[in-house]
Formats: sequence, C-alpha cells, structure tokens
Amino acid sequence: MDKSESTKIEMGESSKLERKLGKAPLLGSPSHAISSAVVPTKRAGNYKRGIAIFDLILRIAAAATSIGAAVGMATAGETLPFFTQFFQFEAGYDDLPTFTFFVIAMSIVVAYLVLSIPFSIVCIARSHVIVPRLLLIIFDTAIVTLTTSAAGASAAIVYLAHNGNQDANWLAFCNQFGDFCQTTSGAVVAAFITVVILLILIVLSAIALKRH
Amino acid sequence: MDKSESTKIEMGESSKLERKLGKAPLLGSPSHAISSAVVPTKRAGNYKRGIAIFDLILRIAAAATSIGAAVGMATAGETLPFFTQFFQFEAGYDDLPTFTFFVIAMSIVVAYLVLSIPFSIVCIARSHVIVPRLLLIIFDTAIVTLTTSAAGASAAIVYLAHNGNQDANWLAFCNQFGDFCQTTSGAVVAAFITVVILLILIVLSAIALKRH
Repeated sequence: MDKSESTKIEMGESSKLERKLGKAPLLGSPSHAISSAVVPTKRAGNYKRGIAIFDLILRIAAAATSIGAAVGMATAGETLPFFTQFFQFEAGYDDLPTFTFFVIAMSIVVAYLVLSIPFSIVCIARSHVIVPRLLLIIFDTAIVTLTTSAAGASAAIVYLAHNGNQDANWLAFCNQFGDFCQTTSGAVVAAFITVVILLILIVLSAIALKRH
Repeated sequence: MDKSESTKIEMGESSKLERKLGKAPLLGSPSHAISSAVVPTKRAGNYKRGIAIFDLILRIAAAATSIGAAVGMATAGETLPFFTQFFQFEAGYDDLPTFTFFVIAMSIVVAYLVLSIPFSIVCIARSHVIVPRLLLIIFDTAIVTLTTSAAGASAAIVYLAHNGNQDANWLAFCNQFGDFCQTTSGAVVAAFITVVILLILIVLSAIALKRH
C-alpha cells in the first residue's frame, strides 16, 4: 500500500510538471525536449514533401513546354509558291544555324527533364535525402543556362527576321515567310516559359535545401 | 582518511571510464556527446567560411569580367575611311538592338555583382547565417539568366556578322568592320566567362546551404 501511494504522488507530480512544462517549454526535461524536437522535424518533412510534389509538377510542365519548343522549331517550315529575288523557295530551321542550335539544345533539355523526373519522385518519397536534391539543383542550373542561351540566340534571330536591320543591310523576311516566322516565334516563347519554370525549380530546391 | 580513499577510488573509476569512452564514443556520457557534437560544427563552420571566401573572390572576378564585357561592347566602334554600297561609314553597338540589350544587361549584372559583395562579406563574417546565402543564390540565378540571354543573343549576331547567312541573304560585314567584330566578339566571350563564374557561385552556394 505504501508503495502504491508513493507511485500516486509521483504521478501527480509529473502531471503538475507537465502542466508547468506546457507553459515554459524552455525548461523542459530531456524527454520533453526530444518530443518538441520531433514536431518541427515532422512539419519540416511535410513542408519538404510539399515542395517536392510541386517540384515534380513544375518539372513535368517544363518538359511539356520544352517539347513544344523543340518540336515547334523542328517542324517550322514554309514553301512559297513563287520565287523572289532575295529568298529561296523553302524556309526551314536548318537554314539558320542558330535555329539548328535551338533544336539540339531543346532536345537535350527535354531529355534531361524526362530523366530528372525519377530523381524528383525520390525527393517526394524520401524528403530528407539531400544528395538527389543537390544533384537536381546543380544540373537544373546548367540546363537553365543552356535553355536561356538557345532562347536568347533564337530571339535575336527572330527579331532580325521580323524587323531586319538597316545599318547592316539585313532585310526582314517575315513578310514572305509569315507562317515560318510565327512558328519560330512561338517556339522561342515556349523556350522562355521553360526558363521561367526552371528558375522557379531552382529557387524551390534552394529553399528545400535550407530547411534541412 | 576513509573519505579520501573513497575519492581516490572514484577518480580511478572515472579515468577508466574515460579510457573506455575514448574507444567507444557511441556509448559516451552526455558531456562527451556534447563535446563530440561541437567538433563537426566547428569543422562545418571552417568549411563554410572557406566556401564564403572563395565566393567573394569569384564574385570579384565575375564583376571584373562583366565590366570588361560591358565596357568592351559599349566602346566598340569603327569608322571607315570610305563608303561602300552596303554599309554606312560608322559601326557602333547602337546600330544593332541586340548589342544595345547586351550593354544594358551587362551594366545591370555589374551593378548587381558590386552590390552583392557586401552580402558575400557577411557570409564570411557569419558563416552560419543562411538568409544572405539564400538571397544570393536566388538573385545569382536570376542574374545568370540575364547574362546568358545577353551573351547568347549577341553570340548569334556576332556569328551572323562573321559568317552571314546565304539563305536569308544576310551578308557578313566583318570583312569591312574587322575591329568592330573583334571587339564585340571579345565582349561576348567575356560575358560567357561571367556566366561560367556565376554557375560555379550558384553550385558553391547550394553546397554551403546543404552543409548547414
């Protein structure tokens, strides 16, 4: 009986202690400290899982826009029914080396984005693993540079095709090849959308790395 | 005398315990656990400080190359002593809208890099603070995109100036304006060097964030 009484008193004390700890968590016992450390880790885990799911969605969107850009540019072509003094019958992406670079670069970007989807899924399944996330941020940065250089270079050429340049005596050919110009412009816009999505992906990855 | 003897025995036991702990640190007492936790933190601190110093050096190098690119392009110009059928007397960066964009973009990059140096110094002084590092990685990513688009677009125009394009009937003008072409090509190369340095900076920042 004496033993059970002492147990009762102990329980009462511990519950009092717990109530006190609830108001002053900084002075908590070791066990309380552990339990309070577990809660933010779980929250951070959910937070990181949310970022990883958003990462996957954006990655699929980026793959879609880059496929659009690559296919759009590769299939852009126009055959004129007549012959003019300055231009040939046909216009295709392979007439301009910059557009060829664009098609090759965007194909690499598409391949990378498709291959990176499994890594993104690993980041969802194991949100605390940082090696795939670090690999993703490094390769994303390299790929965003490739995409931007292709998009920037093609934008310069598309601008020239639309407006020409009097000082260099380069004439615009969009009057003749309107459809070709429209398609290539669309491809360049799609490439810039890919760039923006990739930028968001990099920022998200950096935030996910920070919260580790 | 009896008290001093018991003290002696205790000391002997504690030294034995310490010797045991030295061989099996995983089973250590709380005080030992704390001391072993402090050592990696210090090492990580030195590691991060090293990265931060390297970051500052690379940032100054990037500022130098971007100043070179901006000034090189802005001062590129050539006046021919004769008049040809296709070209004007003078060639300057403001004759081509892409080169104007290049000068503006590289000026923004220079301004950002100079303004970011204090943040980099904060990262050296307080290597555990992550907010400036996160800000640096986000803005570095935005700036690397701006630099790459300017460099890519100008590279496309420089290529056209050197080689021309028969299909679009755009003639190369580097035969006439050799010096102008050389200077602009140099500026584009300097911009691409800036891009590479900025990429290394982003990867370094990501690694520093990871080790937090």
